[in-house]
Amino acid sequence: MIRVAVDAMGSDRGARSVIEGAQQAASEALEPVIFGAAGLDTGELKLVPTTQVVGMDEKPADAFRTKADSSLVRAVKAVADGEADAVVSPGSTGAMLAAGLVLLRRVPGVRRPAIAVPIPSRQGPSILIDAGANADCRAEHLLQFATMGAVFAEEMLAIPRPRVRLLSIGEEPEKGNQLTLEAHELLAASDLDFQGNAEGRDILEGAADVLVTDGFTGNVALKAVEGTVRTLLDSLREEITASTAGTLGGFLIRPAARRLRRRLDPDTYGGAYLLGLRGLVVIAHGNSSPTAIANAIRLAARGVDHDVVGRLATRLLQPEGAEIV
Amino acid sequence: MIRVAVDAMGSDRGARSVIEGAQQAASEALEPVIFGAAGLDTGELKLVPTTQVVGMDEKPADAFRTKADSSLVRAVKAVADGEADAVVSPGSTGAMLAAGLVLLRRVPGVRRPAIAVPIPSRQGPSILIDAGANADCRAEHLLQFATMGAVFAEEMLAIPRPRVRLLSIGEEPEKGNQLTLEAHELLAASDLDFQGNAEGRDILEGAADVLVTDGFTGNVALKAVEGTVRTLLDSLREEITASTAGTLGGFLIRPAARRLRRRLDPDTYGGAYLLGLRGLVVIAHGNSSPTAIANAIRLAARGVDHDVVGRLATRLLQPEGAEIV
Repeated sequence: MIRVAVDAMGSDRGARSVIEGAQQAASEALEPVIFGAAGLDTGELKLVPTTQVVGMDEKPADAFRTKADSSLVRAVKAVADGEADAVVSPGSTGAMLAAGLVLLRRVPGVRRPAIAVPIPSRQGPSILIDAGANADCRAEHLLQFATMGAVFAEEMLAIPRPRVRLLSIGEEPEKGNQLTLEAHELLAASDLDFQGNAEGRDILEGAADVLVTDGFTGNVALKAVEGTVRTLLDSLREEITASTAGTLGGFLIRPAARRLRRRLDPDTYGGAYLLGLRGLVVIAHGNSSPTAIANAIRLAARGVDHDVVGRLATRLLQPEGAEIV
Repeated sequence: MIRVAVDAMGSDRGARSVIEGAQQAASEALEPVIFGAAGLDTGELKLVPTTQVVGMDEKPADAFRTKADSSLVRAVKAVADGEADAVVSPGSTGAMLAAGLVLLRRVPGVRRPAIAVPIPSRQGPSILIDAGANADCRAEHLLQFATMGAVFAEEMLAIPRPRVRLLSIGEEPEKGNQLTLEAHELLAASDLDFQGNAEGRDILEGAADVLVTDGFTGNVALKAVEGTVRTLLDSLREEITASTAGTLGGFLIRPAARRLRRRLDPDTYGGAYLLGLRGLVVIAHGNSSPTAIANAIRLAARGVDHDVVGRLATRLLQPEGAEIV
């Protein structure tokens, strides 16, 4: 039985929606445990009552320090204490990162935990790592991100030998900034299936199974893609409804648009995965649907089942051991 | 009379298309001069015959060194020699940058020339600077980019007091990497109308008139936006044509889709502007339509008319004078 701690209080849609998702995910092999306000109706699921809530606007370090009895911190702590195997929260990424670093600590050999986000590319899921945990990186960090991303893709997405690319500003090895030029060399010399640089336009095309980048560039690029999808679909709707023929046409293409939206829907993969900690941490979107929460919980359980944390440790334990940079 | 040197040989669509654009732009006040192979039919326009062509795949430095008689290098040289006031080329950005740095040289006070790209945002044109000239930057470079972008927006887009934002990973001043944290302070202390950080999702929404970033992040973000637009429209077409009702609907929304495409069309603004050199350099898209070339030539002439180069020099001449970093 795999136990997943679920923070019910961080969702924009309210606790009800998170609990519904947890109920969907519950099975004979998977027990979601709800962390949230006393009195929540969790049905069959166990409720661990907590008294505080971490807001999305709070500074992560403050939130962690002053909200020891928040659903977010308690859910992470449950993993640290061995009471749960993984944690899922739709709350603040920064607060989850802060809580994870202090309570769970890093896997031996991991220099920097990183955020892996599955991108619904045209050729299937593709992992972008780091999507925002580390704004400033060194080349050896990017090499570790690539390795963590590859382990994630192997175990969680069942891709046997993931193709790795480095996000840069040209496909040629000599194109890039100081960081990517150095990282390119490290990746080329590694035992990963490194296929060179990719560009911003390749993100949704699925040029790689694992797309490696520093957390600053990754975050800007991910939000650029998300923002463009939203702006474009909104603008198309405006243009379409500006005429009668367009409105009728819009009605007729609605099923197609819905299929596309579903294909591009980040909810399919449940959110962002914080890799490199001694326990699997999943950060769901703040406005996750119950289905998205259920998918996040199932994927977290799959990560436990496949021992992603242990596999990361094996792959990342360098000769220099627990050297921390 | 403003004279614009036009490189006719770098276009994916062939010289014919560039010459047509130049003919469209020609007026009593604007004389395009064509640089290209002897024998090209340029109609009324003057042709300066050249014998070499710079390919898109050539290394910029090599291209510049070995192709002194290329249409690209000769067109840039015409500006350096005072035979033309500005240059427009649909050729290699890297080669244009290399030729511009050597032949035109920097405006006194400018540390790093940068690429300004007008983005067709929902709220009208918005300038992204630097879109790729400088992969590694320091905070003071970003401050200069912001100033150059503001001058461009004032003179070329007629925006009286451009709102400037810094591309980062969160709106709060303390969110970012080392570079943006430092740049944020410099921008906040400057006399620009600095309105804080913007995120990747704001690019197409038009949160700023000038969006400042280093050339690496800018290039990745710009290509992410362009790639997402293309992937999304392609995917929508695939989904729509998968059913009969969808195909009919697609037919009915075609005018709306065309309006949207036109609104988002980068051709409206002609391409990328290389700012900070002693002469205006415009790099049109490699597959620019005649209209795009004409717009690029007109905008270059407007830059000459408004003395963008002189205005940049006035705004950027620091107390420390011609100090070069």
